[in-house]
Amino acid sequence: MTYCVGFRLDRGIVFASDTRTNAGVDNIATFSKMHVWELKGDRVLIMLTAGNLAFTQSVVSILSERISTPPDPERPSLSSVTTMFQAARVVGAAIREVRRVDKQEIEDNPGLFSASFILGGQIGGEDPRLFQIYKEGNFIEATPDNPYFQIGEHKYGKPILGRVASPDMRLGVAAKLLLLSFDSTLRSNLSVGMPIDILIYRRDALEVSERRRIQEDDAYFKKLSTAWSEALRDAFVHIDEYEGADTLMPPVEVASSRRG
Amino acid sequence: MTYCVGFRLDRGIVFASDTRTNAGVDNIATFSKMHVWELKGDRVLIMLTAGNLAFTQSVVSILSERISTPPDPERPSLSSVTTMFQAARVVGAAIREVRRVDKQEIEDNPGLFSASFILGGQIGGEDPRLFQIYKEGNFIEATPDNPYFQIGEHKYGKPILGRVASPDMRLGVAAKLLLLSFDSTLRSNLSVGMPIDILIYRRDALEVSERRRIQEDDAYFKKLSTAWSEALRDAFVHIDEYEGADTLMPPVEVASSRRG
Repeated sequence: MTYCVGFRLDRGIVFASDTRTNAGVDNIATFSKMHVWELKGDRVLIMLTAGNLAFTQSVVSILSERISTPPDPERPSLSSVTTMFQAARVVGAAIREVRRVDKQEIEDNPGLFSASFILGGQIGGEDPRLFQIYKEGNFIEATPDNPYFQIGEHKYGKPILGRVASPDMRLGVAAKLLLLSFDSTLRSNLSVGMPIDILIYRRDALEVSERRRIQEDDAYFKKLSTAWSEALRDAFVHIDEYEGADTLMPPVEVASSRRG
Repeated sequence: MTYCVGFRLDRGIVFASDTRTNAGVDNIATFSKMHVWELKGDRVLIMLTAGNLAFTQSVVSILSERISTPPDPERPSLSSVTTMFQAARVVGAAIREVRRVDKQEIEDNPGLFSASFILGGQIGGEDPRLFQIYKEGNFIEATPDNPYFQIGEHKYGKPILGRVASPDMRLGVAAKLLLLSFDSTLRSNLSVGMPIDILIYRRDALEVSERRRIQEDDAYFKKLSTAWSEALRDAFVHIDEYEGADTLMPPVEVASSRRG
């Protein structure tokens, strides 16, 4: 599995992704799931990928190849588009291209070709924008109400994001939040693994502000993980204990074919 | 969906289950997923159920019917068995019976017949025991290393359980922990819904100690939920902010057909 998060703030965008891939539990490797296209002063695009690695790498290869070929007005590339919306459409088109080529195999093995993508960045004077792109090539955009996207193994890391995330956070605070969300996920699912790639994009910088690979022995991450565990246990202890009451239960009704 | 937890402690067992069932988002109802068989002074058995309601109710009905029919040495019932291990086998046999009857429909609609069960309680002088029983009728037992079982929508509520749960907790503390785990789940997944049924079994009581249905407006649950949110935000604020470094990333390797 994979866990990736993109979080759009007023001050920029923070991205984080794990690096574990597996083809069976005895065939595990480290691959970056964070892909960066940067043209300093003009645009920065960051894409996080989850799902079948053959599929997602093909999409990344198509996007990269098209950048290095001469511009073609019929086939916009990540370097020729003028808005992030258009960039998301370019990624969608690349996804659909891979699906067309692999059509027969997808029909035979639908599970093998599942994938999802987070695309964020800034082009020129436009605001930084963040999209989640589905395996069908369609996409949605982050809004102040819903400022982050998670792909892959998203459930374990959701509660803390849901409680704390707010677009007016500082970027360093947002990075801390994403790492805590990773900490919860790493503790619960072995198939999400260190190191973690983290990237901070500051609004209007038009270049990657900070990019770092956080290894297992990273001092900050270890401190964060320990401090969070202690803080949670401490918070838990200080909440009032449950004092039950012998209240009668309503009788159980009977019905069928519902899903509980 | 459903969320149910059973947590075996040195002092007894605490159970909690939600009550939401749905057959589509426009067809939602409240059903207890907690089933209790109690013979005061002799045995208490509690079963939590997740999955297709037609399936789980059939299993419960078979178990209940067999209790009220005359004892048959060939067909032990929850009232005739002398250990919790035997009780788990009786539940497993009931599950297999339903699957035999519905064999053709299960083959046609495998998804419809998914279900899982948590069975716990105490019989006579035996220690309280807790089992998770699979839809195939086989089962595993809780141990001090792994004192709780979750069924249904278990991921959102796992991080807090994983960090805090310990078999030497007081029962009221364990109940608080299960309710916090529910709080995280309820916030993240609409298909898990209030009210929550909670049941506390005290070791050697041989009767249900406390059983309560916690409604949406329950004062303790509201207080717990608010206090926990505040404590988490507070803990979050007090952890050092991330200070990134411009560290170069290792180059991305290329390979195929792995799953990221």
